[in-house]
Amino acid sequence: MTEKISENSYVLLYLNSRRSYLVKVEKEKKLHTHKGFIELGELIGKEYGARILSSTGVEFVALKPQLRDYIFKSQRKTQINYPKDIALIVMFSGIGPGSRVVEAGTGTGALTTALAFYVKPSGRVFTYEIREEFIETARKNLTRANLTEYVEIKHKDITEGIDEKNVDAVILDMATPWLVVPHAYEALKPSGAFVSFSPTIDQVVKTVEALEQNGFIDIQTVECLTRGMQVKRGKTRPQTLMTAHTGYITHARKASRPTP
Amino acid sequence: MTEKISENSYVLLYLNSRRSYLVKVEKEKKLHTHKGFIELGELIGKEYGARILSSTGVEFVALKPQLRDYIFKSQRKTQINYPKDIALIVMFSGIGPGSRVVEAGTGTGALTTALAFYVKPSGRVFTYEIREEFIETARKNLTRANLTEYVEIKHKDITEGIDEKNVDAVILDMATPWLVVPHAYEALKPSGAFVSFSPTIDQVVKTVEALEQNGFIDIQTVECLTRGMQVKRGKTRPQTLMTAHTGYITHARKASRPTP
Amino acid sequence: MTEKISENSYVLLYLNSRRSYLVKVEKEKKLHTHKGFIELGELIGKEYGARILSSTGVEFVALKPQLRDYIFKSQRKTQINYPKDIALIVMFSGIGPGSRVVEAGTGTGALTTALAFYVKPSGRVFTYEIREEFIETARKNLTRANLTEYVEIKHKDITEGIDEKNVDAVILDMATPWLVVPHAYEALKPSGAFVSFSPTIDQVVKTVEALEQNGFIDIQTVECLTRGMQVKRGKTRPQTLMTAHTGYITHARKASRPTP
Amino acid sequence: MTEKISENSYVLLYLNSRRSYLVKVEKEKKLHTHKGFIELGELIGKEYGARILSSTGVEFVALKPQLRDYIFKSQRKTQINYPKDIALIVMFSGIGPGSRVVEAGTGTGALTTALAFYVKPSGRVFTYEIREEFIETARKNLTRANLTEYVEIKHKDITEGIDEKNVDAVILDMATPWLVVPHAYEALKPSGAFVSFSPTIDQVVKTVEALEQNGFIDIQTVECLTRGMQVKRGKTRPQTLMTAHTGYITHARKASRPTP
Repeated sequence: MTEKISENSYVLLYLNSRRSYLVKVEKEKKLHTHKGFIELGELIGKEYGARILSSTGVEFVALKPQLRDYIFKSQRKTQINYPKDIALIVMFSGIGPGSRVVEAGTGTGALTTALAFYVKPSGRVFTYEIREEFIETARKNLTRANLTEYVEIKHKDITEGIDEKNVDAVILDMATPWLVVPHAYEALKPSGAFVSFSPTIDQVVKTVEALEQNGFIDIQTVECLTRGMQVKRGKTRPQTLMTAHTGYITHARKASRPTP
Repeated sequence: MTEKISENSYVLLYLNSRRSYLVKVEKEKKLHTHKGFIELGELIGKEYGARILSSTGVEFVALKPQLRDYIFKSQRKTQINYPKDIALIVMFSGIGPGSRVVEAGTGTGALTTALAFYVKPSGRVFTYEIREEFIETARKNLTRANLTEYVEIKHKDITEGIDEKNVDAVILDMATPWLVVPHAYEALKPSGAFVSFSPTIDQVVKTVEALEQNGFIDIQTVECLTRGMQVKRGKTRPQTLMTAHTGYITHARKASRPTP
Repeated sequence: MTEKISENSYVLLYLNSRRSYLVKVEKEKKLHTHKGFIELGELIGKEYGARILSSTGVEFVALKPQLRDYIFKSQRKTQINYPKDIALIVMFSGIGPGSRVVEAGTGTGALTTALAFYVKPSGRVFTYEIREEFIETARKNLTRANLTEYVEIKHKDITEGIDEKNVDAVILDMATPWLVVPHAYEALKPSGAFVSFSPTIDQVVKTVEALEQNGFIDIQTVECLTRGMQVKRGKTRPQTLMTAHTGYITHARKASRPTP
Repeated sequence: MTEKISENSYVLLYLNSRRSYLVKVEKEKKLHTHKGFIELGELIGKEYGARILSSTGVEFVALKPQLRDYIFKSQRKTQINYPKDIALIVMFSGIGPGSRVVEAGTGTGALTTALAFYVKPSGRVFTYEIREEFIETARKNLTRANLTEYVEIKHKDITEGIDEKNVDAVILDMATPWLVVPHAYEALKPSGAFVSFSPTIDQVVKTVEALEQNGFIDIQTVECLTRGMQVKRGKTRPQTLMTAHTGYITHARKASRPTP
């Protein structure tokens, strides 16, 4: 028995690879697009994956949103977190169902959403944010993805300290990650993971130096590039444009303090 | 209270960024390395992250293995699955705790390990493999990572059909993924995800064509490149060599059948 | 004694890294820009590199055009040739001052301009183009770069044969390079170079097969990616967007016919 | 009438894409390879491109060396200059037949060889090198490529000044390019080009700052990556390994001094 679209659930209305809409299904609501409008109420009771026509007869598909749809469609008031980077950050952090994770800054909650998704149901994300205006946005995005219960949003400056102890990972996407390194060491369980995402080389150098001076080992920095392919028999080729840079990912693991 | 290293648990003995050892801790066992041997029994009762000296006085750190250590250290009788690719495959598949996933081929179980890690504890991985010699290796690798209870290994040819219904994702790393596309459509729940990893362009073209002909939408193919940085104040630069290609990742989502 | 800007010569009026203008200096002519107009006649008698103010007081620099300025500023009625690709094509072709080169198709003459620039004064470029509308454009671009005397433009279909013999290189940027391979073998001097630029994989495969079947050796295909850096102390990072693909460069050398 | 192989000329004995030998043809000389030896005297009077069998019956092809063969086969006592980088350096420098160029350091003469090749016959390369042991190597490499008459090797420290005036380009591949920037400004003709190749970010930042402070404009830094393709019908794919980094190329043009 397959899951049906219900009122107040979210669907991704997919038009083509460049255009899709993440919307809440409500009875009397219309979604207006450049291809006409869609009566969202008509979706209630249908299966996910259903095809629906707009008022001008153009076909959309009502997909069940995935994690990456929630990430992509986060309100972009702050730096974008790319799925490729989030995927690698999750991998390098070693987190999974049940993990306890500290994150900063929260921003619009794109990375927070991913962390909560992977640690649920028994894990927790503790996310620090100093800019009050972001906290509301992040909370909305987490609510939409149905993940609020796994996250504690903290209106606090993480460079002044981390409240939690014995966490599995500390994950940073902020301007001055190197200031958090000593606090991360204290918060992490032995052998725990540190991951930081930074756009500039200078941030990377300062962070790596702080890690070296604070008992971390297995320190590595990588950048990740993804390139799309245009696939068509006899005409296959890479796409014309690509994102050249988002940021560097630095990761490390906590060792016990060296004996002096 | 932090977790201690116990007998029969695994540790990653880390020497440096190029050399580390994934070993089972047993009382009378020695690990022999080019830097002398290590008495593994001495680790019992220590915290993860502990520093230990080899017989020649060289320091190792006893880390708690992460998912990517289990992946990297899979016995390589078959194609290697890179953490970067596994991370993206997991992201594009949309799976998480509780998901039900079909995979083929099992190979040494590197990707299987990752899938089981992310769907546990309530999800399941159904993995198909026709080559009997791999099944034992995969089982050993899953046992080592303590993930066997979340996986059902099936000695079957997936090109002849998929037993499961209503699964969240079908994930393929095999020579002829296009032959599985119609079966994947039947096995997937509405809006479910298809992901395939292939080294050659020709495989990609055939797979994309099969997806287009079988009711899938949002079909995309990407390749992922990661490049390490050598970080040192005043001398920072990208690394000299990198992996230029592992494979292309094609992903898509199941729509309802078009009305004729 | 340095060269002065004279009437009817070309200058590159440089505003910033995104905006510059390749113009002919004429007495009564004005260049209109979004930063006001420039009296071109005022440049006559000045040194190249001179700074000049527009009518609104914005500074431009009157640079002497380089080869890559002529290439970039070719009228783009056809596919763009990127400096990076042209640079590699020239390198792989082995041509230099004095070389005799066959090229097809001429297009707007961007690659032709580069070839003529490097083979002058004693070399020659024989360039084939079937589309009459391009020939005039190419001629204008070559005139502007002062290179017409080194080029013979031929309104002919190169897939039907090459008139020249004993040439140093055959260089192709056209839809069906594989059809030219047998003619290239006949036209090339022993050990001469073949270079072809193609956007799609399919073109590459057909061309490589034709080369293998026609006595060529040292057959290699590469793609070239360039990424800009944003350099600023403390904020250095790669640029955000880049060209992901222009085309593949296939090159090879003529060996004597194998003895049967 | 085609050119024949003569005594004392150089040939590239090509075995396959991984193995080739740049040798001087002498009457009684043998080339010893892991596939048997080749009697070099037998090549005299043959056409370039001729196939020849080794003592064990393996076929080699006697190609006429191209510029990139001379570059690749330079004795590698110093940093390697890659053809991709040399091709871009030449393009960005704007040099061609007749140009006058200053270069430092000479190293083994790989880049010098390319510069001389493109500026001949009427241009000149003035190359500075402080390490005496390299000068002899560079001279040998230039002699082999038959380019000595276009080059003046100077045993001098370029950071102390450039003797030449009114040159078309200054091209640097050395540890401290920023120290040369003021001298480059004096040596260059108006609108002349500066190009520098550096492995590390720190070198790039210092060089760009020096350029900004010394009247240069159009300052850009790029890195170039090339990736080979394995082309085979039905199995085409990028190669497995690639060079991830050689260096960054910074280029700029001289403007007149800003009026204070």
